[in-house]
Amino acid sequence: MGDFQNCESCLSTPLQLFQCITEQGDKVRSLKTAKASKDEIESAVKLLLQLKVDYKKTTGQDYKPGSPPEDVMSTSINGTATEMDGDEDFVDPWTVQTGSAKGIDYDKLIVRFGSSKIDKDLIERIERLTGHKAHHFLRRGIFFSHRDMHQILDAYEQKKPFYLYTGRGPSSEAMHMGHLIPFIFTKWLQEIFDVPLVIQLTDDEKYLWKDLTPMQAYQYAVENAKDIIACGFNIDKTFIFSDLDYIGRSPDFYKNIVQVQKHVTFNQVKGIFGFTDSDCIGKISFPAIQAAPAFSTSFPHIFKDKKGIQCLIPCAIDQDPYFRMTRDVAPRIGYPKPALLHSTFFPALQGAQTKMSASDSNSSIYLTDTQKQIKTKINKHAFSGGKDTIEDHRKYGGNCEVDVSYMYLTFFLEDDEKLEKIRQDYTSGALLTGELKKTLIETLQPMIQAHQERRKQITDETVKQFMTPRKLAFDF
Amino acid sequence: MGDFQNCESCLSTPLQLFQCITEQGDKVRSLKTAKASKDEIESAVKLLLQLKVDYKKTTGQDYKPGSPPEDVMSTSINGTATEMDGDEDFVDPWTVQTGSAKGIDYDKLIVRFGSSKIDKDLIERIERLTGHKAHHFLRRGIFFSHRDMHQILDAYEQKKPFYLYTGRGPSSEAMHMGHLIPFIFTKWLQEIFDVPLVIQLTDDEKYLWKDLTPMQAYQYAVENAKDIIACGFNIDKTFIFSDLDYIGRSPDFYKNIVQVQKHVTFNQVKGIFGFTDSDCIGKISFPAIQAAPAFSTSFPHIFKDKKGIQCLIPCAIDQDPYFRMTRDVAPRIGYPKPALLHSTFFPALQGAQTKMSASDSNSSIYLTDTQKQIKTKINKHAFSGGKDTIEDHRKYGGNCEVDVSYMYLTFFLEDDEKLEKIRQDYTSGALLTGELKKTLIETLQPMIQAHQERRKQITDETVKQFMTPRKLAFDF
Repeated sequence: MGDFQNCESCLSTPLQLFQCITEQGDKVRSLKTAKASKDEIESAVKLLLQLKVDYKKTTGQDYKPGSPPEDVMSTSINGTATEMDGDEDFVDPWTVQTGSAKGIDYDKLIVRFGSSKIDKDLIERIERLTGHKAHHFLRRGIFFSHRDMHQILDAYEQKKPFYLYTGRGPSSEAMHMGHLIPFIFTKWLQEIFDVPLVIQLTDDEKYLWKDLTPMQAYQYAVENAKDIIACGFNIDKTFIFSDLDYIGRSPDFYKNIVQVQKHVTFNQVKGIFGFTDSDCIGKISFPAIQAAPAFSTSFPHIFKDKKGIQCLIPCAIDQDPYFRMTRDVAPRIGYPKPALLHSTFFPALQGAQTKMSASDSNSSIYLTDTQKQIKTKINKHAFSGGKDTIEDHRKYGGNCEVDVSYMYLTFFLEDDEKLEKIRQDYTSGALLTGELKKTLIETLQPMIQAHQERRKQITDETVKQFMTPRKLAFDF
Repeated sequence: MGDFQNCESCLSTPLQLFQCITEQGDKVRSLKTAKASKDEIESAVKLLLQLKVDYKKTTGQDYKPGSPPEDVMSTSINGTATEMDGDEDFVDPWTVQTGSAKGIDYDKLIVRFGSSKIDKDLIERIERLTGHKAHHFLRRGIFFSHRDMHQILDAYEQKKPFYLYTGRGPSSEAMHMGHLIPFIFTKWLQEIFDVPLVIQLTDDEKYLWKDLTPMQAYQYAVENAKDIIACGFNIDKTFIFSDLDYIGRSPDFYKNIVQVQKHVTFNQVKGIFGFTDSDCIGKISFPAIQAAPAFSTSFPHIFKDKKGIQCLIPCAIDQDPYFRMTRDVAPRIGYPKPALLHSTFFPALQGAQTKMSASDSNSSIYLTDTQKQIKTKINKHAFSGGKDTIEDHRKYGGNCEVDVSYMYLTFFLEDDEKLEKIRQDYTSGALLTGELKKTLIETLQPMIQAHQERRKQITDETVKQFMTPRKLAFDF
């Protein structure tokens, strides 16, 4: 749903929810004791009630203080019951659920979604054709699945043009580290292939799904654009747009939206996205809006009237349903199918099976966190695969497969040798959890500081330039 | 569905369809005999098959040559079975059905739709406030029903602004006399109230419902705009727009569309419009696009950011479902409910219970018809309420209630006294059918000729001006 890296569409267990409710209940009581403002109390109560509703939906039981939930059949948040027997994960644009601390089983997902694994051959072909070493997201299987990437490479080999498309659902001002994954990778793709890039901010979708005004959603889009620009995109090769703004500025984009809308039935979106008769017609027709940027004629200022230019979409795997639909429609309205590169999910600090929650700032590291907050969050909240005592740890070693600090290093520590040494030492017990966390802290602190400094430089004028429909540095 | 006067959304009986199929079958055979071109034959066969599908839908039976249908339960074209026991008419934006030669029972429709009858008090109040004699469409009950018209008159009395909104679904280049009704009346309203007017051409909707490309639908919109402009609208007070063009030029219009889409569920549009799970998501979300022009902020070039300006919508009664929905949503997104003035349907030449068909040019008088065609069509096809022989006619008199020529005169002969004399003389038998038809021919020929002359004067430049978002001659 516009989030090209998952966000609230994350992981939750009944136990996690139970703990959230208990904590939120404590918070409400202490606010009341402290005679806090009416607004503050009301908003805390509202969240508490929402959590209880979520709990009921997830467990099928009412929340009872002091009675943690028993193992139950999981139910996806949009009401579709999904049996999870430990082996079965659930992934759609709104819900990602797994019972495993290692996270989703991505090999199974490839089979289920019918995509292709990014294998050694593909990676080597990318390296050979571009003359660049593969990004560590590729080398480490963080981008692990694709559709038609060989077709894109064929085009590149034949010097035919293609373009990149990614996006984000601006659900709040704050973005966390996980949200950067598709953008870091897309920037790398743009550099090695030297192609145009369009970035969609689905503020209309966030307005439809959340308790926001259109103006708030648009403002989040503009704030998020600053973080995206701070990743270092080339202004001459990148167009960023908010739906609420750009749809109303581009008759050609709207024409493509309507064409998709004509070729997709309610039955289809019901099957793909789990919509029900009680959903608003805005949600029901939204998938067409995420589909249309995959067609080059949606951007006449960049591609003129060229219809055949193929699109490559880097995104998290939970966005694939939108693009399966897009690929189904494309040939029926005379466009090439977009190709895709899928990433895994970015885990919450509390572990790969827990929920990264917008209401819990400790579940992730935000791009706005101070150096001290980064250190505290990692030390206090990052789920450890280490043993309970130093003695046991030295004796049995730690478990990298469930250790969140180690997982984060696979995302952000570029040095393969250093990472491999950490893995070996942690597994053997030579490296302690505190030491592993220290390495992560020392990796993230300068990264985030540099990001914050770049972001500070980005003026409203620069955002406006990125978001103005205009010719890019390519001739079509 | 965008047609603010019904068109294909007209009247059909099983017998009528049976005759159409028989004729079309004959046509296919004679084309084959004459060794006509492959294209010509194929298109005739396609129409034949479509008619057979329609027949099956309407009667529940397969077409059998030589076996006219028996009386059956009528079924609306979008699949919802609707019992019609002779007393019950069926009216929605796509289907208007009645078993009566007099046409729909409008008094019953007012009760069913929950609107109000335009009564003597309302007409007198309009005359008193504006100082103009009521239009003959009001005096003769052609505009017969309203919602909140007294509120509009209150506003007018208090010198508060309001605006007019009407529209058309451009399903082909050719418009017929019936299509002019809302425009003739709207022009009169604009003159007596001196208010801004917006006219929506729903080319997106015609693209969604018909076998058209977006470009064809847009071209029909532009062609139709010429006929609308030829009605004499004031360019300084009128904005005409195509959805396919204007949605992509107005972020504010799109914001209103999304706001409506957030507040209407599939359940609701299913109930109101009879959509099914097999309908495309474009149709399902379209009602929001016909709703949004009822909110003044959709036109910032006219109303700036003024939210509270009320809207008055003159339209045929079959469009009321769209605006019932709009009135339901309006207060929930902070807008006033639009007021409405509803017209009756314009009858087909063959009679008020038959279908005005786009594929049968003899079912109506087109704005492009020659003087001779007008004469021939009326003499040959206009259903007569006269008797079979002159003797019987003189003796028993004619029946104005089912006579199409007389019905057309109520629409187009402005002189009340003359009309009343015709009614009396025809009813008494003093006036023969041929004489009545002659009066109609002499009324329509100069009207259509004048229209054609005005239309010829309308350049592409004028159309462009009308369709350019701009300030009108009002300060807001």
